[in-house]
Amino acid sequence: MSDPQPEVSRGRRPSGRDAKRAARSARAASSVPYITRRIPYYEVLDEEGLSLMETNADTILEEIGIDFREDAEALSIWKAAGADVQAERVHFPRGMCRTLIQRSAPREFTQHARNPARSVVIGGKNTVFAPAYGSPFVRNLDEGRRYARIEDFRNFVKLAYSSTSLHHSGGTICEPVDLPVNKRHLDMVYSHLKYSDKPFMGSVTHPDRAADSVALANIVFGSELTDPLTGRPKTMIISLINVNSPMTYDSTMLGALKVYARTNQAVIVTPFILAGAMSPVTVAGTVAQTLAEALAGLAFVQLLNPGAPMVLGSFASSVSMQSGAPTFGTPEPELVLYSMAALARRLGVPFRSGGSLCASKIPDAQAAFESANTLLPSCLAGVNFMLHVAGWLEGGLAMGYEKFVMDADQAGMMHTLLAGVDLSPNGQALDAIREVGPGKHFLGCAHTQANFETAFYRSPLADNNSYEQWEAEGGSDMAKRANALWKKQLAEYVEPPIDPAIDEALLEYIAKKKAESPDSMV
Amino acid sequence: MSDPQPEVSRGRRPSGRDAKRAARSARAASSVPYITRRIPYYEVLDEEGLSLMETNADTILEEIGIDFREDAEALSIWKAAGADVQAERVHFPRGMCRTLIQRSAPREFTQHARNPARSVVIGGKNTVFAPAYGSPFVRNLDEGRRYARIEDFRNFVKLAYSSTSLHHSGGTICEPVDLPVNKRHLDMVYSHLKYSDKPFMGSVTHPDRAADSVALANIVFGSELTDPLTGRPKTMIISLINVNSPMTYDSTMLGALKVYARTNQAVIVTPFILAGAMSPVTVAGTVAQTLAEALAGLAFVQLLNPGAPMVLGSFASSVSMQSGAPTFGTPEPELVLYSMAALARRLGVPFRSGGSLCASKIPDAQAAFESANTLLPSCLAGVNFMLHVAGWLEGGLAMGYEKFVMDADQAGMMHTLLAGVDLSPNGQALDAIREVGPGKHFLGCAHTQANFETAFYRSPLADNNSYEQWEAEGGSDMAKRANALWKKQLAEYVEPPIDPAIDEALLEYIAKKKAESPDSMV
Repeated sequence: MSDPQPEVSRGRRPSGRDAKRAARSARAASSVPYITRRIPYYEVLDEEGLSLMETNADTILEEIGIDFREDAEALSIWKAAGADVQAERVHFPRGMCRTLIQRSAPREFTQHARNPARSVVIGGKNTVFAPAYGSPFVRNLDEGRRYARIEDFRNFVKLAYSSTSLHHSGGTICEPVDLPVNKRHLDMVYSHLKYSDKPFMGSVTHPDRAADSVALANIVFGSELTDPLTGRPKTMIISLINVNSPMTYDSTMLGALKVYARTNQAVIVTPFILAGAMSPVTVAGTVAQTLAEALAGLAFVQLLNPGAPMVLGSFASSVSMQSGAPTFGTPEPELVLYSMAALARRLGVPFRSGGSLCASKIPDAQAAFESANTLLPSCLAGVNFMLHVAGWLEGGLAMGYEKFVMDADQAGMMHTLLAGVDLSPNGQALDAIREVGPGKHFLGCAHTQANFETAFYRSPLADNNSYEQWEAEGGSDMAKRANALWKKQLAEYVEPPIDPAIDEALLEYIAKKKAESPDSMV
Repeated sequence: MSDPQPEVSRGRRPSGRDAKRAARSARAASSVPYITRRIPYYEVLDEEGLSLMETNADTILEEIGIDFREDAEALSIWKAAGADVQAERVHFPRGMCRTLIQRSAPREFTQHARNPARSVVIGGKNTVFAPAYGSPFVRNLDEGRRYARIEDFRNFVKLAYSSTSLHHSGGTICEPVDLPVNKRHLDMVYSHLKYSDKPFMGSVTHPDRAADSVALANIVFGSELTDPLTGRPKTMIISLINVNSPMTYDSTMLGALKVYARTNQAVIVTPFILAGAMSPVTVAGTVAQTLAEALAGLAFVQLLNPGAPMVLGSFASSVSMQSGAPTFGTPEPELVLYSMAALARRLGVPFRSGGSLCASKIPDAQAAFESANTLLPSCLAGVNFMLHVAGWLEGGLAMGYEKFVMDADQAGMMHTLLAGVDLSPNGQALDAIREVGPGKHFLGCAHTQANFETAFYRSPLADNNSYEQWEAEGGSDMAKRANALWKKQLAEYVEPPIDPAIDEALLEYIAKKKAESPDSMV
């Protein structure tokens, strides 16, 4: 498994340098299952500001309330817990949600992968990178933009698997619109389980599909369904539960949430907010509302199953006041991100946000500016589970092949950043400075020789050559190099082994479920 | 003066929306002379780490020493101050440089502009954005890459002047290679003084050229040459003094430094380090060496003229271990940046670093990733004087017209980020949340109406439209939109007024100097 170098067919024969590069590449391919940060968090609000946001969230929960729509069970659970339920609107005594959460929610938890070496710990100082989620379209330089198919879905599972900087297989990487809506979740979950051994996300579009996701995972995880560390059912799936902001949970999401929470599978409760449309046009208003909405959903999870693993999510963009279109990579959502990460830490639950978000339709400078302006803040803020790290284009409407490997490269850099400064004697390198001295250069000194293999992050996509060399090689832009890289990565993909009996059982379950009902496009 | 919207010639007539946009644009054009941050600094090293870097810098200064080459005066000044001078190498007792600096260096200072409303305060919580510096080439979409000319230089002065997000006119924005080397500084300084009224940078390539820069500034600033606040000569110029790393000051830079320091003009003492070549391959080694080199130069400034305004600079990139080429926007220089900013604060001097650096030859995704990965960290770290904010391409070898306006847009976003979170009652927006309530939208609510003009940063270059609209409008990338924007901005440029007598005196000085010696290309 490796992030290969971009295809360089420059009409020259492999050199000794190429051999060295290949050897080095092989060494670098030993990836970590997730990142444990060694640099501080960045926060923009002080104690007073954070406390004000918590107070305002409580005011929203108490005075305005949250709707739980078309779910009588949810309303009765809230009534029994002591909330004030008026029709479908729930008002919460101040501090109630926080207390419910802090009483039982785990600060961090393990999501098991079918390959135990790839299990991830979500929460604490850890960061897990997952691909983008939910695009109906795909884009690449060869075909432009078109509807996504299951073949694309498999391709992106394979690309995520072979990207050392990505820790997670993700969920609905793209919508396979060539498959019936009521059955495509089976093919998606199967693809994650078959073509990758990294952890994955389950279906949330219907409670039955959530149940199918758990059933398929159970087939793979077999008899080891209890986590020996916690004594609880093993968490094999994490799933994305979006709030219908402002302040509304709908029955579809509540249905999936209940299935997962009750089976001890992790849920990410995420207010999905385009500020200016679904929240006020201000950062502080958006933060307080996001916190209020998340608190209600997270407390509900703990009421359903105290101790169930869960994540506080925040998806915040701002809309263009001219057109109403969502914008990305702008400073206001960045401020929301820093604020929400700090509030999640104070609450004591893992945090999800960020990624490589952009509004651009193509992998151009706009896409890169916007993505970098989201990815880096997400890392500095302390996001624990980061969805949308690779592939996102066009506000999430398109999954880009070139964008995917470009983003994976950036995610690789974040590994180095989050590792912080090496202050060991070798890191301090005083001997190197003594050896070289004034006016000389360090290229050949003993310390450089000893460290150069691992010295600096090496991008497989950045062209750092001279202008003349770059031009002689075709003068390509990064997107063109990315086009060669994803093709190479797919061509070199090797499937992780899976027990044939398990594979057969998965296919049998899927065939049976597909036969049970007619295809439907809703 | 404004950052105009990109040219939108979509074959439709101006609408009411256009009129509103124009009005809004006019309001937004009221720029600030510099940024005063309201968000915390980001630091990666703790007290122990920072203190270790200071200790190692002292070790370098004491044991290894710094070369001051071909400058007998400098060596005798160091000898008189108590340093150990062996031939051209100076060894400093531990703490000596720090003590010299902290005894007299100003923590912040004002660089005066010929328009007092544009004077900048450098240091403290302030950030000043200046264009890129030093490229022999320019690039634009129409002509590709070619040598820079004085016409380009003027164009970039005009673009910087009309960019509300840039506070400074910069220095050698590009090298006007169509003019003789020994005289082009006169045309450059004249261009800054004539076509802009923002503060500018002086020539450093020869002591005489530094003296010319001061003489020209004196003509403009006339009789008001003493700063009434400090009682010292007014600081009208800031200049870039690069250290020949490792650990070497050459006579050219020392010559210019002495001219400026003695006339109370500001110098930025900047170790220019491509890590792996001019410093060790590690972050901690590069940081300690940068600090040591800067300490020696800054202490020398205070020996020359106690109280002289100065800035600790750090330019750090890492070289590709394959090719030796400099790379930009990678995580290691980002860690250097955070570390050096904190060390400058501890020392008590203003800090220069960062910008929108990249290795890419063209304004593509690589350029944008790399630039964003430098600009944002520079802002979070707390850079006070930021050179290279706009235009930088190809490791500084080319100044890009499109890149310039793309970077200026990003710099505009940083204004919003650095302003932090508005926690006023209007910022908290609880009334808006009360008014709208669960399940509704905020687009038309009273709070949104009252705030939408200033609600979110508006990029003149990002396309946030729907895919269909974007495609109908030509499906352009950001670089293409930037091409239209810089042309519009140049077309709409209006020269700031200058007293004709002063203009005449400037031209007279320049004509006299040019007549004094033959043209030379060295």
